Amino acid sequence: MEGGLPVGDAPPRPLIVALGGNALLPKRSRGRLEDQWRATRAAAEHVAQLAGSGQPLLVVHGNGPQVGLELQRAALTEAALPAVTVDMAVANTQGALGYSLARALGDALAARGLERPVAALITQVLVAADDPAFRAPDKPIGPWLTAEQAETLRREQGWTLVALGPEPRGWRRLVASPQPLAVLELPAIRSLLATGTVVVAGGGGGIPVQRKGSRLEGVAAVVDKDRTAALLAQDLSAAGLLIATDVRGVALHYGQTDESWPRRLTVAEAEALLAGEALGAGSMRPKVAAALAVARAGGRAVICHLEAMAEAWAGEAGTEVGG
Amino acid sequence: MEGGLPVGDAPPRPLIVALGGNALLPKRSRGRLEDQWRATRAAAEHVAQLAGSGQPLLVVHGNGPQVGLELQRAALTEAALPAVTVDMAVANTQGALGYSLARALGDALAARGLERPVAALITQVLVAADDPAFRAPDKPIGPWLTAEQAETLRREQGWTLVALGPEPRGWRRLVASPQPLAVLELPAIRSLLATGTVVVAGGGGGIPVQRKGSRLEGVAAVVDKDRTAALLAQDLSAAGLLIATDVRGVALHYGQTDESWPRRLTVAEAEALLAGEALGAGSMRPKVAAALAVARAGGRAVICHLEAMAEAWAGEAGTEVGG
Repeated sequence: MEGGLPVGDAPPRPLIVALGGNALLPKRSRGRLEDQWRATRAAAEHVAQLAGSGQPLLVVHGNGPQVGLELQRAALTEAALPAVTVDMAVANTQGALGYSLARALGDALAARGLERPVAALITQVLVAADDPAFRAPDKPIGPWLTAEQAETLRREQGWTLVALGPEPRGWRRLVASPQPLAVLELPAIRSLLATGTVVVAGGGGGIPVQRKGSRLEGVAAVVDKDRTAALLAQDLSAAGLLIATDVRGVALHYGQTDESWPRRLTVAEAEALLAGEALGAGSMRPKVAAALAVARAGGRAVICHLEAMAEAWAGEAGTEVGG
Repeated sequence: MEGGLPVGDAPPRPLIVALGGNALLPKRSRGRLEDQWRATRAAAEHVAQLAGSGQPLLVVHGNGPQVGLELQRAALTEAALPAVTVDMAVANTQGALGYSLARALGDALAARGLERPVAALITQVLVAADDPAFRAPDKPIGPWLTAEQAETLRREQGWTLVALGPEPRGWRRLVASPQPLAVLELPAIRSLLATGTVVVAGGGGGIPVQRKGSRLEGVAAVVDKDRTAALLAQDLSAAGLLIATDVRGVALHYGQTDESWPRRLTVAEAEALLAGEALGAGSMRPKVAAALAVARAGGRAVICHLEAMAEAWAGEAGTEVGG
């Protein structure tokens, strides 16, 4: 009896859905809100299909395109308006995307006659000041810059910058992607899930904060949302983690003659994949790593297409790790 | 035994604190995040003083200066980046200010040895499409505009605009401030308060949404945060509402020879004040109206200085309405 049915007094185990930021704003869009609403409503319909059984449901979402827009807007207005820090830009996107998802999920649940409350929580994630990621920032963020702008920002702000793209190359800021150690709002997420609320949390991977003396402070970093989703899955003893993407599962040797789409990977196979080259350099690697962490902790973990989440949870689509 | 001690199985009645947007960003600031953090930390210290007794605590905050900055940023980048709607700008500020308050409250509670979780919720408020406020928008919002810009926006976007200030006058957009009918996240707020979580919700008065067929849609409007706080006080049968401001209470005939600062107003006195002229035209009127609504519903309602909230709740500062 998988998937969150109550046993005695134990609270039902939640299902966690991880949506990419691109699922909420199509890649071909220039960031128009109409496009974002259309994509968000479509994603919400797919999430709502999972809500019918009363399964506790937690939605974690990315914010890549949206935080990029926020930082671009800040850069374009830097002469006239105050600067925006990365943690605050992530917080902004949690507000905007939390609202969008909560409203769209509320509509989608109501259309199915499901009277479940929905709530989006602002979420902070604790990271370690000595996380090795801070020694080698590798996530491009914010607008493209000229060589002079890059040099000025390197000198005046201490930013790490990198030249990217074909000649003439542009420069971009790099920030670290440290490991999430703890989701500060875990007690609130737990309380809300226990009442049947569909919860949106961990947006953009969470707002990264670190301890500094007796205080927390914001960090100029981004946390991978799949890592945060996997951490939450472990903390909440989740029944499962569905990682939604825009392909049908894990591809091995993609685009090569021996391309394959396994429906299942054992823990050992997933470990071997992460150690080898068959996954390629794309965004599938952190998804497999997140799924592996959940599988090791005893939950189900499936990587699937956004539109096949219900089938994937029923064991009929996607790539399941472990099990 | 006022103020939220449990009686039998009834949940303790919460205390609601309403903070102005200016309490989180001083008027003299140009919007720098350092200023916002300093003000937010100071406000959080005062709120934390109320948390020691275990009293369920809900913080509602304004966002006037912050949403102004958001819309100014959007206007300055309109040629290069997608437009930002008012509901989305409010959502952004809920993210940024919810994060700021949650982090600062967490620090302030920890410094007092209080292990209470904190959570900021994205909050939507339902408004009526036929609210009379939509027929006479009166809240200036966003940047100052030239006469030509105003005329273009009136024609192309259907905005209501007004000329303000001394000659040469600038133009500003006006939006409605409709009544909040329901806070959509009320069940989540209730659940979190019941677990002892200090909750931040209703930021900026809430994101205004209205029903359109089977869906909700965002509205270009702003909701008064004191009205939303009063609605929440009634919905939650709050023990009280503290409306924090930058003066010591309600002033009558402010700046005139008969200026006075009453420590208490009966319901009848408050009603007479709202019908008369003694309150002046400033921002005190909605605060008295909100306090009156709470007093009528049987809660305590005190308007006080931000720094005197604990004294005000103890009956030793501010202006209490009713009682």
